[in-house]
Amino acid sequence: MTGKVFVSVSMSLDGFIAPVSLDELMGKQWMELQKWIFPTRFFRENLQLGAGGEEGLDNDVARATFERTGASVMGKRMFEGGEHAWPEDPPFHTPVFVLTHEQREPWERLGGTTFHFVRDGIQSALDQAREAAGDRDVRISGGGATIVEYLNAGLIDEFDIALSPVLFGAGVRLFEEVDASRIALEQTRVQHSERATHLTYTVRRR
Amino acid sequence: MTGKVFVSVSMSLDGFIAPVSLDELMGKQWMELQKWIFPTRFFRENLQLGAGGEEGLDNDVARATFERTGASVMGKRMFEGGEHAWPEDPPFHTPVFVLTHEQREPWERLGGTTFHFVRDGIQSALDQAREAAGDRDVRISGGGATIVEYLNAGLIDEFDIALSPVLFGAGVRLFEEVDASRIALEQTRVQHSERATHLTYTVRRR
Repeated sequence: MTGKVFVSVSMSLDGFIAPVSLDELMGKQWMELQKWIFPTRFFRENLQLGAGGEEGLDNDVARATFERTGASVMGKRMFEGGEHAWPEDPPFHTPVFVLTHEQREPWERLGGTTFHFVRDGIQSALDQAREAAGDRDVRISGGGATIVEYLNAGLIDEFDIALSPVLFGAGVRLFEEVDASRIALEQTRVQHSERATHLTYTVRRR
Repeated sequence: MTGKVFVSVSMSLDGFIAPVSLDELMGKQWMELQKWIFPTRFFRENLQLGAGGEEGLDNDVARATFERTGASVMGKRMFEGGEHAWPEDPPFHTPVFVLTHEQREPWERLGGTTFHFVRDGIQSALDQAREAAGDRDVRISGGGATIVEYLNAGLIDEFDIALSPVLFGAGVRLFEEVDASRIALEQTRVQHSERATHLTYTVRRR
């Protein structure tokens, strides 16, 4: 039995998952988007920020998302954004398959994260991630364009959205290029804390 | 003591509240957006569609929204869209203040709905609606542009969104022109049925 292919992202109420440019100071809005996860015990542990942190639903959601993930897939821009920003022990602790046109040897980091560079398309990257994940799930990590590419191709089983009480007004929209005529959603779980509403959808073909 | 000024809309997961054109057949998506309200007992009663209908959370939310509303404000395009479509006894049963440039006498309909045409701007329409609503709340009914105009002007106290499990891909975005730098939201209530997640936000100035 193989695992699911899922997405887990924080989204603003107006549908954005990132500012226009990462150099831009989104200031309060960006922090508010992520506000549900930063104070959690899991987040602090996983990035080795020290002891402490909050328990509760947000912490449980963050930990469960991490624990179900056996491998990740990400687009080239997300990788390039993180390549110099992630610590030596990046927060994945699994194989990560990066969609790219560049030929590059696997890049092994501390703590179990190895980046593999895949040149032959999204299906191949997913197949390799499934193989690496074993019984666990494959997370399509991002960015938005990569997520929607998998979604439109019918390759996503489940969508987790942490809907944060913030408006961006501009930025990267999660569903910008979605082919809505082909995607049906079933709302399968709703949980909420004071900081976010955690929505789970099962994805089906129309 | 005067009531609140609130918005209550159904929104797709990708942020749309209406199709590109009302003539367009949105087909399944449009029906799915409204699917939480159509089968309710309240909806059937209010539009005189006959007895029966479902009880439960969705029905309670629809009824409570109606009962709190002492007057409504709407934009000209929403009014023009409904003018020939609403029945002789329109579903408002209160005074409705329509933002327009046209001079027109009040239009009294059956069942307590009277449309008043306001030519001197959004603040005036709101003042008149507050006066008419008495202790009850004023609903800014729509469309999207009118809602955001009031939101950006700092005139909305509360936002109710019925988030439906559907993607539109195109259409009228609720928050298209929002001035995000001025609006802060506090998530004050989350309820959900199988058909929608009912989100309530208190609106504050940044």
